[in-house]
Amino acid sequence: MIDYLAHFQSTLDQLKQERRYRVFATLERQAGRFPHATWDGPDGPRDIVIWCSNDYLGMGQHPAVVHALTEAAQSMGAGAGGTRNISGTHRAVVGLEHELADLHGKEAALVFTSGYVSNLAGISTMAKLLPDCLILSDALNHNSMIEGVRAAGSDKLVWRHNDLAHLDELLARAGNRPKLIVFESVYSMDGDVAPIAGICDLAERYNAMTYIDEVHAVGMYGPRGAGMAEREGLMDRIDVIEGTLAKAYGTLGGYIAGKRAVIDAVRSHAPGFIFTTALPPAIAAAATASIAHLKTSQAERAGQQAAVAATRKALLDAGLPVMMTDTHIVPVMVGDPDLCKQASDLLLERHGIYIQPINYPTVPRGTERLRITPGPFHDHALVDALAGAMVSVWQTLGLPLTNTRTVSREPVGWVMAGG
Amino acid sequence: MIDYLAHFQSTLDQLKQERRYRVFATLERQAGRFPHATWDGPDGPRDIVIWCSNDYLGMGQHPAVVHALTEAAQSMGAGAGGTRNISGTHRAVVGLEHELADLHGKEAALVFTSGYVSNLAGISTMAKLLPDCLILSDALNHNSMIEGVRAAGSDKLVWRHNDLAHLDELLARAGNRPKLIVFESVYSMDGDVAPIAGICDLAERYNAMTYIDEVHAVGMYGPRGAGMAEREGLMDRIDVIEGTLAKAYGTLGGYIAGKRAVIDAVRSHAPGFIFTTALPPAIAAAATASIAHLKTSQAERAGQQAAVAATRKALLDAGLPVMMTDTHIVPVMVGDPDLCKQASDLLLERHGIYIQPINYPTVPRGTERLRITPGPFHDHALVDALAGAMVSVWQTLGLPLTNTRTVSREPVGWVMAGG
Ligand SMILES: Cc1ncc(COP(=O)(O)O)c(C=O)c1O
Ligand SMILES: Cc1ncc(COP(=O)(O)O)c(C=O)c1O
Repeated sequence: MIDYLAHFQSTLDQLKQERRYRVFATLERQAGRFPHATWDGPDGPRDIVIWCSNDYLGMGQHPAVVHALTEAAQSMGAGAGGTRNISGTHRAVVGLEHELADLHGKEAALVFTSGYVSNLAGISTMAKLLPDCLILSDALNHNSMIEGVRAAGSDKLVWRHNDLAHLDELLARAGNRPKLIVFESVYSMDGDVAPIAGICDLAERYNAMTYIDEVHAVGMYGPRGAGMAEREGLMDRIDVIEGTLAKAYGTLGGYIAGKRAVIDAVRSHAPGFIFTTALPPAIAAAATASIAHLKTSQAERAGQQAAVAATRKALLDAGLPVMMTDTHIVPVMVGDPDLCKQASDLLLERHGIYIQPINYPTVPRGTERLRITPGPFHDHALVDALAGAMVSVWQTLGLPLTNTRTVSREPVGWVMAGG
Repeated sequence: MIDYLAHFQSTLDQLKQERRYRVFATLERQAGRFPHATWDGPDGPRDIVIWCSNDYLGMGQHPAVVHALTEAAQSMGAGAGGTRNISGTHRAVVGLEHELADLHGKEAALVFTSGYVSNLAGISTMAKLLPDCLILSDALNHNSMIEGVRAAGSDKLVWRHNDLAHLDELLARAGNRPKLIVFESVYSMDGDVAPIAGICDLAERYNAMTYIDEVHAVGMYGPRGAGMAEREGLMDRIDVIEGTLAKAYGTLGGYIAGKRAVIDAVRSHAPGFIFTTALPPAIAAAATASIAHLKTSQAERAGQQAAVAATRKALLDAGLPVMMTDTHIVPVMVGDPDLCKQASDLLLERHGIYIQPINYPTVPRGTERLRITPGPFHDHALVDALAGAMVSVWQTLGLPLTNTRTVSREPVGWVMAGG
C-alpha cells in the first residue's frame, strides 16, 4: 500500500537533493516606481530593483493601462461572469480581439486566458482539425507549444533549432499530407531570433501552414509593436500569430490571430477556449489600452533598446561573460547551478538586485545563467550599480572575469524555456 | 494538396448544418445594476436581464471586490510581470493562497490562472507523480478534468455518474496500486450533487486519494462558503479540493488546496503552473476580498437560495418543465436544439431576457435546455417577468405546458458540461 504523503514528500526531497527545488521570492511592485519593488526577505521587507521582469516595457504601471483597468472594473465589475458562450462575451474582450486583428493585419483574433492556453489550445485544435496532420516543431519551442503538440496527438517531427536545412529535409520527406510548422520568433532564454523569412519560403514551397509564437516580441519589435514578423515585413506570410498580453503589454491573457476561417474553427472547437471563464473586462480593457499605446508610441521601445545597449556595454566592459544576442535579452553565463543560485542570492541580499537564477530544466545543465531584461526604466545609475554589484559577486564567488570584452555566444540547446 | 482555408471553412459549414455553430451574445454588464446589462443586438444596444450568469452571487460588482481590484492596480500595476518563479510571485497572490488554505482548512493552496488550468495541471501532475496510478473518473466530469486525466497518461476507469456501487466495484478490482478518484460536488448542467461521504468511505477503505471539483459550490455552500464538502463536514476527508475564483467569487483564476507535500509537489512539477505568467495582483486582491467577505456574510447565500426557490416556484406554477435539482441551478427542459435556440432568441428579442441555450455537446442530444441561475439580485418583479415571458415563448413555439406542477427529473448523462 502506498503512503501518498510520504511519496509526494520524497519527490520534493529529491528536487532538494538535486538543487532543483524552487523557492519563490515574494515581491510587491509599486506602480510609478518600476523597476523598484519591495522584497519580503528573511529580515523583513526591503527595497530592491528587479532586473528580470517580463513586463519588459513597464506597461504594467503605465497610467493609461492602469486607468483603463480601474475604469472598466468600476463600470463593469471584476469578472466576466461566464464562459464566452454563456454570458461571458463582453464588449471589452470583443474590442480587444478587434485591436489584435488590426495589430497583426489579420482578419480575426481570439483571446485566451493566457499565452500558455493559447498555444496549448491553438496548436492542438488546428492540428486535430487537419486530417493526418504532421506537426514540425522547433527543438527549442516553449513548454506551452510542446504541450499543444502533445495534446494534438498528431505525428510530429522536431527540427533542429533554427536550422532551415533540417526543416527543408523533413518537409521534403513529408509528402502531401497537411503540415503545420510551429516555432517562436524570439527564444526567450537565449535571445536568438528565428529565420522567419526562410521558414515562410519553405512553408510556401511545401504547402505547409505556419504558426509563430511572438510572445517575447509583441510590443517590442516592429513600427507598431506587432513583433518580429512585422519588423521583417512578414506578417502576411504567416498563417497564425500567437502572442501574450502578459509580458510587454503588462497585463494578462494570450491570443492567436489569422484568417477568419482558421480562428473561427479554433473558437468553435478548442476545449481550452470553450470550457473556461472569459478574461475579465478590466483586464481586456487594460490590454487594449496597452496595445493601442504601443502602436504609435516609440518611446518605450527606444528606451528599452537604449537600456539594453547600455547594460550590455557596462557588463562587457566590466569583464562579465555576457552572451551576445540580437534582442532585448541579456544572459550572463555562470555554467553551474549552485554558483548561479549563490550569485543570485548575493545580488539580492548584498546589493538589493533581483535576478532569478535560470537553472535546469529551464536551460540545459552546464549553461546555468542569470537572465537580465533591461527596460526603459533602468537608468544609467541603475545600470552602473548592476555592473558594480555583479563584479563584486563574481569576485566573491571566484567566478572568471576577463579584462577584455568577452563575446561568448554559446551554441546551447534548451531543454525547456520560460518558467 | 490540401486547401487549408477551405478545409477549416468546411468544418464550420458542418457545424452550421448541424445547428451547432455558436454565435456569442456581446454584453456589457454595469456594476451596481446586475443582473441588468446592455446587449449589442441587431438593432443596436439594448437593456436586458441576464439569467444565466455564473457570477452566481453578483460578487463581481460587490464594492469591496471592485475596490480591492482598483486599489491593487493603482498601487501595484496591471500585471504580475513574470511567471511565479521569475519575478511573478507578489504579495497579493501569496495572500490569496493563505486565504484559500484557511477557507478549506488545508495546509496549503496553489493558485492557477483559471479553474480549467487548475484541473488540467492538478490532476495530470498528481497522477504522473504517482507510480502506476489508476484514475477513477466520474462519467460526467467537466472537460477540464477529462483533459487533466488525458494529459496524465495514466490508466483510467470511468465510473457511472454518482454511482457508489460501481465505484466500489472498480476500486475492489484495482488492487494495491495508487488510485486517484476525481469527481465534482455540484454538476453544473444538471445541478445534482455527488455522494461525497460515500466516496470518502470508499477512498478510505481502498486507500485511494480523492480530488473534488467544487467549482460550482465554492462561495455558495457551507457556513463559510467553502463548498459542499464544508456543508457536509467532509473537507478534512478529501485530499485535494479544487475551485474557481471566476464564478461565485466573481473574479478570475483557479486553485487547489490540500496537504503541503501534495500542493508543493504540484507547484514544483506542473507545467501549466510553472510556464505561465502569474495572476495579476489586482485580480488576486479582488478574489481575496471576495472570499473574505463570503466567509462571514450569509446575505448573498440566503438571497440566492431565496431567489432560486422563488424562481423555481414561479416557473412550476406556470406549468413550465422545470428539472428539479438540490442546488441553485434551475434547468428547464426543451429537448430539441432548434426549439431551444428559438426559445432563447425569443426571450432575448421580445422580452429582453438572456438565457443561453444549452445544446449538444454541452448536454446530450434530446436534453437541450435553458439553464437558469437565479442570484440574490433577481427580485420578485424580475422572477415574475421571467415566468411570464417563458410562458409566452412556450406558447409561441407550441411547447407543452402543464396545468399542474411538473416535476421532471431526467436521468440524463452529460457528454460535456459547462461551456
Ligand atoms: C515562448 C513562450 N510562449 C508562451 C508563454 C506563455 O505565455 P503566458 O505567460 O501569457 O501564459 C511563455 C511564457 O510565459 C513563453 O516564454
Ligand atoms: C466543473 C467545472 N470545473 C472547472 C471549470 C473551469 O473553471 P474556470 O472557468 O475558472 O476556468 C468549469 C467551468 O468553467 C466547470 O464547470
